[in-house]
Amino acid sequence: MSDVSYTKEARNTVRRHRERAKYDFATVHAIVNASSILHVSFLPTNPEADPFPTILPMIGTMGSFANPSADLGDEGIDLYIHGHSASRFMKLPTSADADPAGIPVCVAASIFDGIKLALTPFNHSCNYRSAVLHGRAQLVTDEAEKNWALHIITDGLVPERWNNSRVPPTKAEMLSTSVLKVTVVSASAKINIGGPGDDRKDLKDEQVTGSVWAGVLPVWQMIGTPIEGANNKVNQVPKYLGAWIEEENAVREKYALEVSKDLPKKSKD
Amino acid sequence: MSDVSYTKEARNTVRRHRERAKYDFATVHAIVNASSILHVSFLPTNPEADPFPTILPMIGTMGSFANPSADLGDEGIDLYIHGHSASRFMKLPTSADADPAGIPVCVAASIFDGIKLALTPFNHSCNYRSAVLHGRAQLVTDEAEKNWALHIITDGLVPERWNNSRVPPTKAEMLSTSVLKVTVVSASAKINIGGPGDDRKDLKDEQVTGSVWAGVLPVWQMIGTPIEGANNKVNQVPKYLGAWIEEENAVREKYALEVSKDLPKKSKD
Repeated sequence: MSDVSYTKEARNTVRRHRERAKYDFATVHAIVNASSILHVSFLPTNPEADPFPTILPMIGTMGSFANPSADLGDEGIDLYIHGHSASRFMKLPTSADADPAGIPVCVAASIFDGIKLALTPFNHSCNYRSAVLHGRAQLVTDEAEKNWALHIITDGLVPERWNNSRVPPTKAEMLSTSVLKVTVVSASAKINIGGPGDDRKDLKDEQVTGSVWAGVLPVWQMIGTPIEGANNKVNQVPKYLGAWIEEENAVREKYALEVSKDLPKKSKD
Repeated sequence: MSDVSYTKEARNTVRRHRERAKYDFATVHAIVNASSILHVSFLPTNPEADPFPTILPMIGTMGSFANPSADLGDEGIDLYIHGHSASRFMKLPTSADADPAGIPVCVAASIFDGIKLALTPFNHSCNYRSAVLHGRAQLVTDEAEKNWALHIITDGLVPERWNNSRVPPTKAEMLSTSVLKVTVVSASAKINIGGPGDDRKDLKDEQVTGSVWAGVLPVWQMIGTPIEGANNKVNQVPKYLGAWIEEENAVREKYALEVSKDLPKKSKD
């Protein structure tokens, strides 16, 4: 793994709680891939008539078509998101007045890891991992790149799913799906871990400490037992699926519990 | 509960999968309150120098200060979000060139309920509840409203937590926290439920149905056993907390399992 980081610019420099900020590719990209939903924001096309930005929840994953075996910490990793070809957002990058370099977007990936219950509401906080990327989104027109992108997006949902389902896609399926590539221009991550941080004054107040429970509620996204569809003809849940669910649940729970513990050196967060 | 809906305008009208769209206040606001993280997007202050929108993950809740006992389906429900007073975003609404009516924002709330595994990647989908709100954010300057907003935001994280922690906030705490009120101008929700939808051709292909497992992986946000902080002096997890965790986990799991089932009338989704 190389050790590359996003340059700190005005746009992506974390100002509050700088100690929680990370700029290295590996951390930022791993959060994107671990997040089930990505939130993609774009500007209004006619700000004078309608000044609001829009956010869409989407599915996507990081990857390098030029170097498919690239590590998440390597350079040249892009974000691929997909959607229906007829959707307003997927058509934006090829609209008449769009910048050929791609439309400016912001993508946020957030994972909620726990609720920190401090003695006072003011010191309540959350454990989380969050990545915010700014980049330019362009339509993927190369068929091989598009096919590869759909493959990694599908496997980003459930590993090995692409090869364990009916592929390749038909021509009609490929036509109805569009893939956008977001070339990232700046990004940052913010990670909060540990137990609640309290003020000395509250900690010394026995009436407060004697009545307020303080600690963390660990939170993780749990995957339940697979529920077969009415048309399913495969009796057993395949191993690639069952083993992944078990492993993934264990990893998620372990992380949430691990970061709920107090940090060795307590500091007000 | 009254039966009020957001007006369908160009901005908030769902175009793809209209059958999944909801516009009524109760549905939209309930999704916001059930979502642990809100994603808030705002425009660049100088689009010519820096054309990217920004998304921040935030915590917030719906409420009506004029009518605190209002139902989520009632009129006049606003979104309250909080943050550190010194943060760039919290200072935006009172910056010199900001519209006094509030800065235009988009807020997205998304809950991931499951992964639909269809026979072909193209028909893969997710079960989810998502709300997208457009509105104008203003700084809350009235002390009573600010205090009330912090109360409902805290209780939105964990019910009854405000009254079970050290309150009222000190003057310094109130000064370091800002609250923004978002007056919603348009909104919509999108809800996807049910099992995977497959094409007739795939369903008739025995080689496909005999080899591809099809169904849903239910997903929900699990709250683990509370982990006490190093400074906690209350021996037992209080009932308002323990009972809520148990109930909340049951509600979340039940919903995820319920929506994983095939819908009575199957249709390709």
